[in-house]
Formats: sequence, C-alpha cells, structure tokens
Amino acid sequence: MKQAVFLIRTDDRQGLLAAISNFFTGHKYNIIGCRQYTDLHEGRYFMRVVIDLSNECTRRELEEHFSALARELRLTYEIHYSDEVRNVAVMVTKTSHCLYDLLMHSEENTLGGGRVVMVVGNHPELESVADRFRVPFYCFPVEKGKEAEQEALLHPLFERNHIDLIVLARYMRILSDDFISRYPRRIINIHHGFLPAFQGSDPYRQAWERGVKIIGATAHYATAELDEGPIIEQDVVRISHEDTPEALREIGRDIERRVLTRAVQAHLEHRIILSDRRTIVFGR
Amino acid sequence: MKQAVFLIRTDDRQGLLAAISNFFTGHKYNIIGCRQYTDLHEGRYFMRVVIDLSNECTRRELEEHFSALARELRLTYEIHYSDEVRNVAVMVTKTSHCLYDLLMHSEENTLGGGRVVMVVGNHPELESVADRFRVPFYCFPVEKGKEAEQEALLHPLFERNHIDLIVLARYMRILSDDFISRYPRRIINIHHGFLPAFQGSDPYRQAWERGVKIIGATAHYATAELDEGPIIEQDVVRISHEDTPEALREIGRDIERRVLTRAVQAHLEHRIILSDRRTIVFGR
Amino acid sequence: MKQAVFLIRTDDRQGLLAAISNFFTGHKYNIIGCRQYTDLHEGRYFMRVVIDLSNECTRRELEEHFSALARELRLTYEIHYSDEVRNVAVMVTKTSHCLYDLLMHSEENTLGGGRVVMVVGNHPELESVADRFRVPFYCFPVEKGKEAEQEALLHPLFERNHIDLIVLARYMRILSDDFISRYPRRIINIHHGFLPAFQGSDPYRQAWERGVKIIGATAHYATAELDEGPIIEQDVVRISHEDTPEALREIGRDIERRVLTRAVQAHLEHRIILSDRRTIVFGR
Amino acid sequence: MKQAVFLIRTDDRQGLLAAISNFFTGHKYNIIGCRQYTDLHEGRYFMRVVIDLSNECTRRELEEHFSALARELRLTYEIHYSDEVRNVAVMVTKTSHCLYDLLMHSEENTLGGGRVVMVVGNHPELESVADRFRVPFYCFPVEKGKEAEQEALLHPLFERNHIDLIVLARYMRILSDDFISRYPRRIINIHHGFLPAFQGSDPYRQAWERGVKIIGATAHYATAELDEGPIIEQDVVRISHEDTPEALREIGRDIERRVLTRAVQAHLEHRIILSDRRTIVFGR
Repeated sequence: MKQAVFLIRTDDRQGLLAAISNFFTGHKYNIIGCRQYTDLHEGRYFMRVVIDLSNECTRRELEEHFSALARELRLTYEIHYSDEVRNVAVMVTKTSHCLYDLLMHSEENTLGGGRVVMVVGNHPELESVADRFRVPFYCFPVEKGKEAEQEALLHPLFERNHIDLIVLARYMRILSDDFISRYPRRIINIHHGFLPAFQGSDPYRQAWERGVKIIGATAHYATAELDEGPIIEQDVVRISHEDTPEALREIGRDIERRVLTRAVQAHLEHRIILSDRRTIVFGR
Repeated sequence: MKQAVFLIRTDDRQGLLAAISNFFTGHKYNIIGCRQYTDLHEGRYFMRVVIDLSNECTRRELEEHFSALARELRLTYEIHYSDEVRNVAVMVTKTSHCLYDLLMHSEENTLGGGRVVMVVGNHPELESVADRFRVPFYCFPVEKGKEAEQEALLHPLFERNHIDLIVLARYMRILSDDFISRYPRRIINIHHGFLPAFQGSDPYRQAWERGVKIIGATAHYATAELDEGPIIEQDVVRISHEDTPEALREIGRDIERRVLTRAVQAHLEHRIILSDRRTIVFGR
Repeated sequence: MKQAVFLIRTDDRQGLLAAISNFFTGHKYNIIGCRQYTDLHEGRYFMRVVIDLSNECTRRELEEHFSALARELRLTYEIHYSDEVRNVAVMVTKTSHCLYDLLMHSEENTLGGGRVVMVVGNHPELESVADRFRVPFYCFPVEKGKEAEQEALLHPLFERNHIDLIVLARYMRILSDDFISRYPRRIINIHHGFLPAFQGSDPYRQAWERGVKIIGATAHYATAELDEGPIIEQDVVRISHEDTPEALREIGRDIERRVLTRAVQAHLEHRIILSDRRTIVFGR
Repeated sequence: MKQAVFLIRTDDRQGLLAAISNFFTGHKYNIIGCRQYTDLHEGRYFMRVVIDLSNECTRRELEEHFSALARELRLTYEIHYSDEVRNVAVMVTKTSHCLYDLLMHSEENTLGGGRVVMVVGNHPELESVADRFRVPFYCFPVEKGKEAEQEALLHPLFERNHIDLIVLARYMRILSDDFISRYPRRIINIHHGFLPAFQGSDPYRQAWERGVKIIGATAHYATAELDEGPIIEQDVVRISHEDTPEALREIGRDIERRVLTRAVQAHLEHRIILSDRRTIVFGR
C-alpha cells in the first residue's frame, strides 16, 4: 500500500485540524495516521499526516490541490512518498562502530527506508568495512589548507548519487559553513558526549576527571555553529568510579552507535519537524 | 481559564478527526489540545480533546450538542471539567512510603488536580502520618471471615465523601470481586514487582535468588483477577549482585512510590483511555 | 551488632590489601565488608572496610593500633561507628519537594542512619512543612549586603546542634567561600540540571529551547567554585517535545528529590571517598 | 603485560582476604585488580584477583603453589590467562541482528578478548552474513525426530575448533539436556523478553496486548530447564501505547543485541562467578 507523509507547520489558530483533515477526507484520502502538536508557548502548530494513495488521484493532482490549501492556510509543508528511494552517504574517519551499525541496518532494511549507498572517508582506514557490505568507498584525504578543494569534490559526487542524507559517523574534520549550508537539515552529526557537554577532544577523560555518574551521546542536525544544531536524539548510560577513561570510551561508542542510528531512522521515516532550534520528533 | 477534557473512543473510520474537530470549531470552542491514536490492529480510534470554555455556551448545552454528535458517530466518551473537585481515598496497611508521596503531592498540588481527602487503614499504624497532613484516618481492622462486613462499611464512607478514585497504596488485603466491580476503573493498585513478575509474598527475595539485574514496579487498575488489570505505569532500576534482598526492598519502595504517583496523576489528569486490557496513556 | 567503618586512601603499591586485612584479622576483628578500588591512572588506592566490634578491644585501643599502621603505611583515613548519631541540617528557600523527601526518609529511618534535626530557611515559607514533622525551623532572612551577618548566625547554631551534614535543598542563596570552607565535604548541594549543564536561572526553559531529549539533576559537594564540586549522584529522565517548560520543571523536581536523597544516604552511610574532584562511591 | 585472572569462591570466614592476598604478595605477584563480594545471606565469599605475570615464576609453579593454598582454604577456583585464545561459536537460525553485533565486536576486538570462529545455523539463511566477515558457516538442518543426530555432529566440530563458548544468538531450536549438560556454563542464550516474562512464541504481541510500558531482554547461561538458567545481563526500554507489535519487535531486537553482547563480554573477560542460580558479575 503506497502512502504519502505530510509534514506541516504553521501558526496555531482555530480550525486548523478540521480544515486539514477535511481536505483529505474531502478528496477521499484515507488518513491512516495523524499526529499533531501545538506549541502553546510559541503559538505554533505541527502536524504529521500519513494517507494511503489507493484512490484515483495522481500525485500531481494531490500536490496541486494541497498547495492551494497551503496557500490559503499559510502552511509550510513537505510531502514524502513511501516508495521514494532515500540515499544515504556516510562520512567517516577511522572509527568504525557507527559505520558498522548503519551498514548493518541498511542491510537489514531497518534504516527507516533508507540505504547507505556510499561511504566517504578522509582516511582509507574503513575501506574494508565498506567493501564487506559491497558499498562503494571514496577516500578524499584532507591536506592542511586544502579543505575547500576536498569539499568541492564531494558536491558532484553527492549530486550524481542523489544523496538525500549525509551522516557524519564520527567524521573528525570540521566542515565549512559553506558546505553545511548547502545541505540544510540534511546532515546529521553524532556528538561524542551528552550536550551540553564537556568541550575539547577527550570528553570521556574530562567526564572521568569530574567523576560524572552518567555519560551520553547526542545526535543533531549540523549547523554553522558546531554542536549547536537542533538535537534529534540523546541517550545515556549510568557509570561508576570503577570505569576507566578507556571503559568510558567503549561505553560511549555503544551509546553513539545507538543514538546516531535512531536519529537517522527518525529522519528517514519523516518523523521530524524543525522549530527554530527544537526538533519535533513524532513517535513511530 | 476553565477547560473541558473529552476522552473519546470508537471504531476507526474515515473522517472521524474532521467530524469531531469540526464540531468544536463549529460551536466556537477553541481546541487547545488534541491527541488521537489509531490502533490499526484492532481498528480502534482514541482521542483526547481539551477545549477552553470561554465562549457563550453553558456546559449543559455543550453536553447536549456533543451527545447528538456521539450518537451519530457512535462515540463512547467521557467529559471532565478542569474545575471539578477530584477526591482521592488512599487505602493502606503498614508501609508508609507510597502514602507519604501521595500526601506530599496532594499538599503540593501536584497530584493532577486531585486531593487526598481520606486515608483508610486495616491497621492503625499509619494514623500519625495522616494526622501529620491533617487528613482524616479511618481504621477498619479486618477480622478473618468478616471481610464482607468491613467492605460494607467502606461504601457509605466513600459515597458521603464523593470519592472519585481509590488508591491501594500497599494495601495488603485482597478486596472482593464485588467490592472491585463497584468501582470500575476507579481503583489503582501498585504491584510490588515488575509485571509479569515473580509471584508470591516476597518477590524481591525471589528476584535476588534468581539474580535479576533489574527490578521494577507496576501500577494498574484493579480488576477481579488479581494483578491482571490494565497496566498504567511501570518503571525499573538496574541493580547488582551486591544488593541484598533488604536493599532490593528499599530500592523497590522508591520505585513503587514513583510509579504509583505517576499513575494517579495520569488518571486524575484524564489522560487515560481503556481498550480492553490496554491503557492508552496520552502524554501531558 | 555494633560496627566500625574505615574509609582509607593512599598511594597504590603492593601488599596494601594484605597488610590492612592482616591488621584486622590479627586483632581478631571480623571483616564483614570490604571494598577496595585501585585507580591505575593516578596510582591511588581506596578502601572501605566494615568490621564488627564484638571483640574485647575498646574503640580507643582500636584507634591507637590503627593509627600506628596508618603511619607506617602512610594511610589517610576516617573511622565511623554505626552507633554514632548523625545530625543533618537542611537549608531551604521556598520549594518544598526536596525537603519533604528528606524529612520523610528521616522519619522512616531510611536516611542512611542520619536524622534531620533542623531546617533553616531564608524565607518563612516552609516552616509549616518542618512543623508537620516536628522539626525545629529557623528563619534567617538575608538582607542585601548583610549576607555575612546571616551566615555568622548559622555557625553557633550548627555547632550547638552537633550538625554533621548540611544539605542545600534548593537553597537559592549563594553561600560565601568562607562559609563553605568551614564545612569541607560536609555540604551537599542539588544542582537543578544535569552537569555539565545549561547555566542561568532557568535551565529547564533553556533545555526546552534547545530541544534536549533528556533532563537530569546532579548532587555534589559544595566547593568555592559554584557547581564545580565533586559529583556524588546524578540521574536523568527521557522527555519529549510535548513536555512544556512547566512539565520539565515538575519532572525536574522529581529527579532532584531522588538524586539529593540518594547522595545524602551515600554520605551518611560512609560510602564516599574523595579523590581530587572525583568521588569514589561504593555500593551498599 | 601478561596477566592472570583468578575466580575464587568458598565459604565466608575470617582472614580469607588476608590469606589470599598474602599468597600473591608473598610470591611477589603484583595484584593489579581485586574485587571481592561476601554474600552474608548464604555465607559465601567470592573473589576476582588480577595479577601481572612479570615475575620469575612459571605458570606451572604458580598453579602448583596456588592449588596448595586452595586445598588448605578449601577454595573453588579457576585461573585464566590474558593471552589465552577464546574461541566463540555462534548458533543461529534466521534472524541476523545478534549475529551482526557479535561479528562486528569480534572484528573490532571488543568482544572481551574472544573471537567468533564459526557460525552454525539450522538454516542456510545467514551464510552470507558469516561470509561477509570471512567466518566459516556450517549448516545443519534439523529434521523432525533427528535432533539427536544433528547435535551429534556438533560435538566433534566444537572440539576440533577448541570452542570455549557457545552463543545461542536467537537459535530457535531447543537443545537436548544432554547437549547442554556437556557444556556447563559455556552456553549463553538470549531470551527475547524480560524475565520473568510472557511465555510463548510471541512475547512482544503479548506485551502489547497487556499494555506493558517497558520491554526488555535477558541473557543467561543455558541450563536444562529452559529460560531458568542464571541471569547474566538484562536491559529494558520504555515504550508507549503507540508502539505496534512490529515496533516492539524491532525495539526488542535492539535490546537483545545489546544485552547478549554485554553478557558475552562479561563471560569472556572472566568477570562472572556462579552461585547456585545467581551470577556474581564483577564490573570491568
């Protein structure tokens, strides 16, 4: 059964719910799922509607009709179709745990309808992992001062392969604002630490020194300000004084893996709407 | 701002969402919150609507109009008003931790709009705790074979005091089916263990013997079959082999306290709809 | 059965475990509990020994003998006796949730052997709560610029009442370094947020704006640098975009309550050893 | 630095700790880790000692010396060496999630020092997964009534490959008591549900029907009575009414994967001592 997912946001006001659901029932679309959330603080209205497409209309007609309604109600919206292919590119450096988990879910078809179609590394380290899953691996070493050139090579590659989502799976280079701004809400990064977090290169060491009792990880959309993008998913694990910095790193890897995969799934299942720096993440 | 909460259930079919939300907007009620959930397995539709009552209509008119819609759409529903008083009776035996937490939240006005108006014990033990919060305490010792008589004394007491919810806060007597069936979905019990659970009088000891690594508690509506009622809330805590049965009991008390209070809040905030043995618990 | 608890720390080296346990067995003390932890990074050794005192020796003798060993092995140590009274003073402002939980556990005798013997407020708000538990309440309003005078009044009060531990249960005034330095490792504070945390007066609002998916609280020893003291206990709860800042505050209160009580219990049960900014918290 | 791990159990009595640690220091072994736990209920003593082997003695000498001590103190014990190879066989049917996670950790060298050296399936389904990691796959289809013959084929295979641990990674056949009793404490099974659990083939469906709010998984040693073996590790995840049975199954897969891997790591790191049906699992 083919479906369409509508992600809608607008200012909250009376009658929205009725007007929008009337539209679908009026056009004989069966609403098989509907979630809405009203942010009373900001006076905003968010809605996710899933309809099945087994009626007479074409998608073009659906889109034309809906855009008329959207103009009338001043809706900001996206439409996604269940049979769309969603291509994912994973960028990595040397650590494999997140990459493995993404490839595994891609293989098992549990990545929210997406497939990992390429792995891009700034080191050759993880080529063998990509090979293992028969996914093409591209290596673009970054020379100091030549970051721009490397980034320039990525754009045509992503374009040719119709990449819908770029996942930074412990990619240890900082991407330029220009690069990031070309893929708004299409780059997901995993932060090796619970945000707000210890800054610096070794947060697990800092966590150990501070004697924290819980560590975590955070997946967020990449934005110009590093680690300041909207949070998609977080998770934590309780630790004890007996866990060494090494143990914390290993525990951390496991959380990072889980959190990043869940965030990618939420994005690919079209369950996320952005509201400034907040994400509205609807349940499955 | 006075509000009304509608809890609605019916068979799932097209146009429900539109029809119901049209009703409210048509009658100039502002929908300030709306959650619905469609159970595709059972083909059931559940909805919680919160409206504000600041328009012209009286409650009687509202109820008349809505009952017409309900007949037409075959809705099962409840209406609750934010200014309704909700009186809670707590039944106890000898352990005080759950009682304290309920009285404390009642005192702090964080019990979901309800107030603990009486404590009933089958032992005098906890009278002083009730006194401390200036809540009347009634002691009805249960003589073997005279359970029926004791229960008989409770009904007029509950009636006179307009009791809306009976909370079994570690009440260690089994109530008769007759008693329970007089208060459908109005008795909440805390089960000292994670359900499905170790049976018997000392689940924490059994959990210890089995070496479980996690213990929990479950709050559910009381039904004729003991511990088989619909689950409202559960929580767990990770434990280790170093925790003695005593320690487990103490940890358990803390979980029981938390779980029971959260369940009572969900009920008193009218966030629960029943579907056979399942509870649909909408978020705040 | 009377017991003594030894909290020991020293530089790690061979034979420590044997030497110390030999001491006790040599003097016919039965070791009923022993935990040690070696910090291989810093080369430090931490040990908690519980012995029963049912042999012939007096405590004085025990202390003399052990101090000799300690000199020889260069041990830093504390000795605590199970029959010591531990008096707790709770400092509050206007919010009652932490105070209630502490008084309740004190009343139930589950505060790790300690008793709340006084409540000190800079506002009269919570007098009634203290009264309810028949605990003396002292009100010392703080006039701007006269903080020193207020603090000066507290010292004799704490001294006369043999206060062993001061708990800042959402006490909203900043205490002077002088005050804090007079009670090293004897002041426990609850931080209304997960550390490292959003700074400022309303962390729950900031958490909401940032769209965090998990919130928490942190209990730590008070030190001169605010919120920088050694962390004793932390806990978190998963939240969603539907939770309003108010809801987050209420959820936060529940975590704060739990975390602070657990930290106070760990301290009063003599399960904590400090190592710079880290706490070694041994299990029950 | 080569190390030896001693897992020791005996009846609790005075002087044990001193006697055992004296032994090592007396023989000039540096104790680099020592955990002990006294079960006061059963009067049992458990100890895990890690020493480094950089002194003069041979392993044979160490073992001879220690066995003398063990006789004297009536110790039950195991000795493991850090440079021992630990070979793991994984038995599977059709579901790949646990297998992937084990192979991935084996590949990343984070499986507690063990390596997956073979995958055995009663279906050919997962051959490609094993191939992907270049691990031999053996397929032994089970014909009704010929279980014994199939099992008979496994023993020589395990023997020839020096298998130390057999992991049932969602292996959907029941193994005979005879088979299991040949590998005591060397078979780890993952139970697709939190124990005590809903019985039957589809626990997630039952959990859904009962409306549980938390689901989990349990890893345990396999024993004759199915699912009654000592619990090694458990974990849970909070769910909601919106999660369909399918969603629960997917969430369940993720928990199973995590729990099984952690249990295998604990076993291969020699952190587990058995006490009747309880496991003493020492932290890392």
